[in-house]
Amino acid sequence: MTARSLHLNAFLMAPGHHDAAWRHPLSRPDRALDVGYFQELARTAERGRLDSIFFADGLAIRGDRVEGNLSGGLEPITLLAAIAVATERIGLISTASTTFNEPYALARAFASLDHISGGRAGWNIVTSGTDAEARNFGLDEHLDHHLRYERAAEFVEVARGLWDSWADDAVLLDAAAGRYADPGKVRELGHRGLFFRVRGPLNVQRSPQGWPLLVQAGSSEDGREFAARYAEAVFTAQQTLSDGQAFYKDVKTRAERLGRDPGGLKILPGICPVLGGTEAEARRLDRELTDLQVVDYGIAQLSGMLDVDVSRLPLDEPLPPELLPAEDEVNGNKSRFTLVAELALRERLTVREIIARLGGGRGHRVFVGTPEQVADQLQEWFEGGAADGFNVMPPVLPTGLEDFVDHVVPILQRRGLFRTEYTGRTLREHYGLPRPAA
Amino acid sequence: MTARSLHLNAFLMAPGHHDAAWRHPLSRPDRALDVGYFQELARTAERGRLDSIFFADGLAIRGDRVEGNLSGGLEPITLLAAIAVATERIGLISTASTTFNEPYALARAFASLDHISGGRAGWNIVTSGTDAEARNFGLDEHLDHHLRYERAAEFVEVARGLWDSWADDAVLLDAAAGRYADPGKVRELGHRGLFFRVRGPLNVQRSPQGWPLLVQAGSSEDGREFAARYAEAVFTAQQTLSDGQAFYKDVKTRAERLGRDPGGLKILPGICPVLGGTEAEARRLDRELTDLQVVDYGIAQLSGMLDVDVSRLPLDEPLPPELLPAEDEVNGNKSRFTLVAELALRERLTVREIIARLGGGRGHRVFVGTPEQVADQLQEWFEGGAADGFNVMPPVLPTGLEDFVDHVVPILQRRGLFRTEYTGRTLREHYGLPRPAA
Repeated sequence: MTARSLHLNAFLMAPGHHDAAWRHPLSRPDRALDVGYFQELARTAERGRLDSIFFADGLAIRGDRVEGNLSGGLEPITLLAAIAVATERIGLISTASTTFNEPYALARAFASLDHISGGRAGWNIVTSGTDAEARNFGLDEHLDHHLRYERAAEFVEVARGLWDSWADDAVLLDAAAGRYADPGKVRELGHRGLFFRVRGPLNVQRSPQGWPLLVQAGSSEDGREFAARYAEAVFTAQQTLSDGQAFYKDVKTRAERLGRDPGGLKILPGICPVLGGTEAEARRLDRELTDLQVVDYGIAQLSGMLDVDVSRLPLDEPLPPELLPAEDEVNGNKSRFTLVAELALRERLTVREIIARLGGGRGHRVFVGTPEQVADQLQEWFEGGAADGFNVMPPVLPTGLEDFVDHVVPILQRRGLFRTEYTGRTLREHYGLPRPAA
Repeated sequence: MTARSLHLNAFLMAPGHHDAAWRHPLSRPDRALDVGYFQELARTAERGRLDSIFFADGLAIRGDRVEGNLSGGLEPITLLAAIAVATERIGLISTASTTFNEPYALARAFASLDHISGGRAGWNIVTSGTDAEARNFGLDEHLDHHLRYERAAEFVEVARGLWDSWADDAVLLDAAAGRYADPGKVRELGHRGLFFRVRGPLNVQRSPQGWPLLVQAGSSEDGREFAARYAEAVFTAQQTLSDGQAFYKDVKTRAERLGRDPGGLKILPGICPVLGGTEAEARRLDRELTDLQVVDYGIAQLSGMLDVDVSRLPLDEPLPPELLPAEDEVNGNKSRFTLVAELALRERLTVREIIARLGGGRGHRVFVGTPEQVADQLQEWFEGGAADGFNVMPPVLPTGLEDFVDHVVPILQRRGLFRTEYTGRTLREHYGLPRPAA
């Protein structure tokens, strides 16, 4: 295919992305800790020739919030290693924090995953923005937003240096001469920075992709700058085509200004496709899910997103604008705050309505319709300068992914927008991105 | 089997335990990063009904020492996750450091591995004793030996608390009532200690074994006290039956003094069995390996073990005793220092001879002989109060493990010393150890 082709990532979450998914009869919350379940999902994505699967991650749960939704689960890098050996082509992207990890250990884990998967590892770089996470790692509250991004930048620089510490041709395997590797091609890093001192070299030989694919998902000012500098793929939450276009242009322009080829940075907005064979069927599934929402859980989640307690507000009155903090006072996920606040105020939604609207994608765009209509939407954003591909967030799993693969993907393929066979072996090859030279 | 039965762990190292293994035609150093190779080794161990496989670990390599031996490799927890899904019964033990990890992250990784493997995870707890490791994690030199053990103790207490933070029956999965878990059964830990502050709960539901099997391998004074308090299995290096008996008795006595059932702590000395169909064949393999040793590599390794530079000493003269530091000046692996120093001085070995003697097991006991002779040795130690089982360290892989499984295990089985079929499903069940109550 020489024409521009879109990229599809399946964002997996045990019972599906809708916060009531686990209560829906199509979901399998009983398999949330079953590695075989995730292997099956990955194989479904691979059957659809998707670029990759992806797991979000956090380093805490609230013990008082385990009631209303499925909570807890498997650590994603470990899980992806177990998925890697049950799949052949699909890319494997894990979230990992730059705030609560050490670069040596994390660079090593991703290099191992890249070896184990034959070059299919990706790292979604997050800075971790909650007090709950900080409190599991010796702090009382999390680091300042800007400082987190400074640490993240140094972290990525160190990780890249470690991945490059073995040259591609360092291993000689010369048994006769007793030379396993050429010490001139395994170099120390000697990094001494603000946050880290790391000597190196890494204790893993250079991996098939050199570096894992670098992914980023923050859309704040700091997040966009970070993405423009380091990211090769960006997951983003955009509600409208014009917001999507503005974000796309902004991040690509920033990358260009930094001397990067904007084509080397793929923008993938999230979409939660609520699919039905007919519009009526799709709307029925959407309604079933909304009806199953646990209101207390939705209130707690909304309070977290808005950084303010909404539990005492009347459910059926619009959110009072004066209650909201200014964005610069928010130290958690800034971009998600802005998105939700704007959505609520723009449409004068009640608390109950906001909870319903957020149920499907936690701020990501939810689209209810037939496979044809979903494909139309994807094509419109893709051709309209808002996306290089999509982060597909099925509301209910496994069925939502099966429906997407079996009904939406073939339409995109017929339209010449998506591959019909894998042409590459590595995740970088799927995304059309180069392998970094050591 | 009601009679006492021994336990066998296969200690895996890519090309085998002999430091020249990678140069021997039977080894596969080209497969050192191939997950399929390790899956095959694990299945061989499982075919032999062994209790477990095990990977050592370190968080550094020296770039100037990659020439003489295979160096670098896959991160073991990630690797074991990929092995877990290719095996059914064999236990999966990974080393991990209490000095360079955070308890929340590590407790989570082991809980995930335990879920992924259906209850087969084990953790070999190490405190990490080299400056090279410290320098990859922001320090100039590693922590004081005693302080490392204090941190390790607090680390294990926190990890156990986190593994217990979800009660076994916390998950309700009551979709109708909208209750995923009972918040009264998912508790915060609220740990505030000398080294860690961790609120919890863990973000992984309680795993099949509750806790991974806790293994320990340090044999210094601090190490023995730690083992007596926390370990359920101990890997140890003992050169002679009487040393083995003394160690066995010492650690069991310490455990008893702490109120533990000494049967709940399994002692597994290491043995590197150099096997041949006849004694002459075994001796030939041993000689082949010694002839392939890279002397410079052996000197560097010996210098590390003795905490002193031996590179300028004449190769064919005995090690001068006055060169060695006192044990209390050694801040690295104290017990390995003592073992090697005693071996060298007791037998007045030259530097070259020490390197040859250490080649097979880096201080672990090497035994050269037929399967029958190896079985005799194991039986003698097992029945003589020196071992509950063995840490089997094949000099060359994969053949050394295949030979052990195909020729030594059947003899042990015929003598009624080892299981002929697995009777349990979890690693704890293989070792006859209870599942901790939450």
